[in-house]
Amino acid sequence: MKQSQLFAKTSKSVSKDEVSLNAKLLIKAGFVDKLMAGVYTYLPLGLIVLRKIQNIIREEMNAVDGQEILMPALTPKENWIKTGRWDAIDVLFKLEGAGDKEYALGSTHEEIVTPLVKKMVNSYKDLPVAVYQIQDKFRNEPRAKSGLLRGREFSMKDLYSFHADEADLDSYYEKVKAAYLKIFQRMDLNAIVAEASGGTFSKYSHEFQVLTENGEDLIFYCEKCFYGQNKEISEYKAGDKCPRCGAKMLEGKAIEVGNIFKLKTKFSEPFDLSFLDKNGKKKFAVMGCYGIGPSRIMGAIVEIHYDEAGIIWPTAIAPFSVHLLFLGKDDKIKKQCESLYNVLSENGIEVLYDDRDASPGEKLKDSDLLGIPERVIISERTFSDGMAEVKKRGGKEKAKLMKIDEILKKNLENRK
Amino acid sequence: MKQSQLFAKTSKSVSKDEVSLNAKLLIKAGFVDKLMAGVYTYLPLGLIVLRKIQNIIREEMNAVDGQEILMPALTPKENWIKTGRWDAIDVLFKLEGAGDKEYALGSTHEEIVTPLVKKMVNSYKDLPVAVYQIQDKFRNEPRAKSGLLRGREFSMKDLYSFHADEADLDSYYEKVKAAYLKIFQRMDLNAIVAEASGGTFSKYSHEFQVLTENGEDLIFYCEKCFYGQNKEISEYKAGDKCPRCGAKMLEGKAIEVGNIFKLKTKFSEPFDLSFLDKNGKKKFAVMGCYGIGPSRIMGAIVEIHYDEAGIIWPTAIAPFSVHLLFLGKDDKIKKQCESLYNVLSENGIEVLYDDRDASPGEKLKDSDLLGIPERVIISERTFSDGMAEVKKRGGKEKAKLMKIDEILKKNLENRK
Repeated sequence: MKQSQLFAKTSKSVSKDEVSLNAKLLIKAGFVDKLMAGVYTYLPLGLIVLRKIQNIIREEMNAVDGQEILMPALTPKENWIKTGRWDAIDVLFKLEGAGDKEYALGSTHEEIVTPLVKKMVNSYKDLPVAVYQIQDKFRNEPRAKSGLLRGREFSMKDLYSFHADEADLDSYYEKVKAAYLKIFQRMDLNAIVAEASGGTFSKYSHEFQVLTENGEDLIFYCEKCFYGQNKEISEYKAGDKCPRCGAKMLEGKAIEVGNIFKLKTKFSEPFDLSFLDKNGKKKFAVMGCYGIGPSRIMGAIVEIHYDEAGIIWPTAIAPFSVHLLFLGKDDKIKKQCESLYNVLSENGIEVLYDDRDASPGEKLKDSDLLGIPERVIISERTFSDGMAEVKKRGGKEKAKLMKIDEILKKNLENRK
Repeated sequence: MKQSQLFAKTSKSVSKDEVSLNAKLLIKAGFVDKLMAGVYTYLPLGLIVLRKIQNIIREEMNAVDGQEILMPALTPKENWIKTGRWDAIDVLFKLEGAGDKEYALGSTHEEIVTPLVKKMVNSYKDLPVAVYQIQDKFRNEPRAKSGLLRGREFSMKDLYSFHADEADLDSYYEKVKAAYLKIFQRMDLNAIVAEASGGTFSKYSHEFQVLTENGEDLIFYCEKCFYGQNKEISEYKAGDKCPRCGAKMLEGKAIEVGNIFKLKTKFSEPFDLSFLDKNGKKKFAVMGCYGIGPSRIMGAIVEIHYDEAGIIWPTAIAPFSVHLLFLGKDDKIKKQCESLYNVLSENGIEVLYDDRDASPGEKLKDSDLLGIPERVIISERTFSDGMAEVKKRGGKEKAKLMKIDEILKKNLENRK
């Protein structure tokens, strides 16, 4: 894409009411626009990143036999009354429509997916079932000051699984846990699996926590084996011995980027999601739920991968792989840039090409803000030798001079 | 995909409160589930179709230089007050959140996109701008009895364009009109461009109307050149001469599948979306808006492409290209089916393979309901000769016997 065409501008300053680091960096770089507290518009580059995060999650959910569906955001009051959560969930947005019908905007979807799955399940032969969606959720957060980490409207992947017995739930739960770790790895997030409150039906749930000074959560974790617990439920304190490996437990601030729950029959009972087992006996399906917020992940990645100059996107979710900069005013150089841009693009390499009529300083500054992993600069200084400067964003190595032909060759090879 | 694994079942009957043809067929075939009036869950096959429709629209929007963004559904009251539409749009869903803040759920996004574009535009050099989104809209419809044709929550593609003058808007408007016709063609929908009410700022808007007995709209159209007008504003009656070509005007029921408007400065004025022209003079940007509802299109296609046995999907948006049916109980035949399924799938051909332990009658009936364009049946009758029956869904030709090898070859060739 040519940067001169891009709908979105970088900005030098951000409104003072924006206090979160991730939102400040994302707004400055033109990835998102703030409509109001906790509610953001994704601009073209931000939407590319969000989609890449969603697609990685989608791939790993399909790999654990999750089937993608799409449930509505507008949900009927009756379903929430049935589970007592119409009153129990304080962040539920409620509204009224034609014929005095009352609705909630889905902040989670157990109340919708359970009666849906009930329609498909009669016998143990119909189990297990695992369905997920990637959809926008709504939460009436009293404070929404953490940018993409705590939105009033936000993207969520929610997977729900239904099983004939607890053993089957347990084994699927571990499978999803492994899938989650893979998802975070692919996005350069080092997630610690921390035990957390399990609610009424299980001792523990599990949170995926990423250590960072800007985190809202406090966890204890082992410095060696990374066993962890959320401070809210923890029996440990900093300095204790890890119960698994004996090494030292540390305390740290962290951002929760995913969580998984064994719900067991908490929702299958009120919705009578039952089945006939092998002996023809009626049983309630045993349920698990598994959440990851793609928009929250986008915020978390920015909170972790940045420097004073801007964002440093991990390769797998960067909006483009290459940022090609034309510096100077020489038409011959611009032509060379255009031709490199065309060949790279035609070969499926994601290039943002800064073809704007702007100063070198402005272009370099914007490039830092945008945080595309590799920067290629063609300028008067390098052009006469057929060279360009190549630099990794955020890397400590200095810029390398490379032949333009070699840059092309290297990128075409990497693509494979 | 193997049908035995599919989350979704066909059903023989549909709840009596569902009166619309499209919803009945889609529910019976397991493409959607009805949560409540005007609100549907997309099951795996329905979601595939919806995504294919959205992707065709996306491709054609990108082709007219639209840039994709994603605006929120939750929108602040202030923006709607500014244009007077907080009270004027009677289908606006309104709700209250923390701190007594009032919101509307977006039923359209002029109130959000205009102040957003204002942030990016200062000079005539920043124009034109065209941004679009594919996002869920909400409308508090008093009656929602038309299935996917009139949802309370529904998928919408909305494109907004901003120009320095009317001439530029006019030329872009024609470009989008052509893109819309291409979109409908690709989905086997014959859309008539009908003049409709233009509102305060223009004489006409344009609707894309598809003729069908189940349509909610009435249009007059020329039997020869397909010039059309919505009956609501029409100066014609059935039998009149076409003002363009002189042939006969007919009256017909139709479904509106898209509409385009010249909004001119209706929204740029209240939001002060202005720019400096070449002479340094302040002017308001001139705006157009262009809507297509992917979920409505899905409903419209079903209303048009069906027979008594079920849906007949157009190839471009069918959930799969091939429905492979294993009939009988012979393990050798099942093995042959499995192997054909594997080779086709591995080569990127979208196959639904009915591997279920069900009767031939049930499988054939379900296959009719599902409406996948090509059906391939391997049964005891054909297997010993290495043959399969091939039949187009909805076509008048009889089933053809073909060698299984040839079916494979033909599909691999078609893919290219």
